[in-house]
Amino acid sequence: MTIETTQLHKCSLFKNMPADEITALLEVLDYRIYRYPKNALIRLQGDRYRELLLVLEGDISAEIQDLSGKTIKIETLSAGAVIASGVLFAADNTLPVSLNAHSTVKLLAVPKKAVISLCHRHQKFLENLLSDTGDKIIFLAEKIRLLKFASLEEKLAGYLLHQSIKQKNDRVSLIYNLKQLADLFGVARPSLSRVFSQLYAQGILLRDRKFIKILDKDKLRLLLKP
Amino acid sequence: MTIETTQLHKCSLFKNMPADEITALLEVLDYRIYRYPKNALIRLQGDRYRELLLVLEGDISAEIQDLSGKTIKIETLSAGAVIASGVLFAADNTLPVSLNAHSTVKLLAVPKKAVISLCHRHQKFLENLLSDTGDKIIFLAEKIRLLKFASLEEKLAGYLLHQSIKQKNDRVSLIYNLKQLADLFGVARPSLSRVFSQLYAQGILLRDRKFIKILDKDKLRLLLKP
Repeated sequence: MTIETTQLHKCSLFKNMPADEITALLEVLDYRIYRYPKNALIRLQGDRYRELLLVLEGDISAEIQDLSGKTIKIETLSAGAVIASGVLFAADNTLPVSLNAHSTVKLLAVPKKAVISLCHRHQKFLENLLSDTGDKIIFLAEKIRLLKFASLEEKLAGYLLHQSIKQKNDRVSLIYNLKQLADLFGVARPSLSRVFSQLYAQGILLRDRKFIKILDKDKLRLLLKP
Repeated sequence: MTIETTQLHKCSLFKNMPADEITALLEVLDYRIYRYPKNALIRLQGDRYRELLLVLEGDISAEIQDLSGKTIKIETLSAGAVIASGVLFAADNTLPVSLNAHSTVKLLAVPKKAVISLCHRHQKFLENLLSDTGDKIIFLAEKIRLLKFASLEEKLAGYLLHQSIKQKNDRVSLIYNLKQLADLFGVARPSLSRVFSQLYAQGILLRDRKFIKILDKDKLRLLLKP
């Protein structure tokens, strides 16, 4: 089975790499293509993770099973997503989540050794891989910080107030898109849109392209329960 | 200022590299040495992180300031520790913690560019760096999973039960040492030792070198609040 250069271009690991470099790289790369029908179980929580999986087509739902057997959805992985790049190189390389096909799914699988060799031969790939794992660490650390807030309003207020301190500006640059923000807060996207709309309507926040302006910091702080 | 090969050997990034390779690498490496007196502020939460810091001597306390201005200690970084390797490469490369010198401290600082060049020239270094960030991701993901448990007893029970499922064994291999486990649960080491001792005394757990044997799974499960 072949794979198109354009499909890899969507993936963050191949960001800023010229199309001809990707085409040349694919000719020598040790990889496999996997296909899954809708609702298929792709990988199970606890499985050893020995090849890097990239989503070429479809949506994957990453879920964890808690000790009572209850399934909790962690995130949706769509075309272009890199799956668990950190786990591939961790001492404990067991997958912390189960992966389920949310639609028909096509994956690119690259063995660990081939990933290391890609890092050696393509500096941009190396930088992209390190960015990917770095971004994941920032995301998880932020999520831990936000877990102490009970409601979505509180989480959003806590996040924006913290970013405004970090960015030293009441006009907060949004690092994440709406979907990523919803994942960060552990809610569905429509719920987050609703809370944003409420805060716009109350004159507390103002949307300004890729920025959120905090118009009323005192009212935003009041959303935080003591 | 010079630096000893033996000091780098303690650092996980130079693990399994022959001493003569480290010596040769140091001769061409672009690095700086920083020294701080006890109680000095090394880096502030929100600072841009552009050079990788490795602890050569002393202890550093990583702290965050919450929205009410309260300081919360996150972890202690000792000789051999790699500081925030993920942040160096993240799109948002601002430090999520403040770094304070807990004793006199000596740091090795390697600019981002030099780190990438090390990855190119030394495969072991690359693998070590990827392991380091990967381990961090696993640690944070596990921490998120455990945050839902209120008491330390619950966290420990939840952790051991989850590991026994993942490892498919009632004799659980301890991936972390006591200090790392205490960091994972967000408690001080003596508190964790105390809970371990109680569970040994009650015949629920048995220590067996680097393993914890779960003797009474039902009683361990009872520690989890519904």
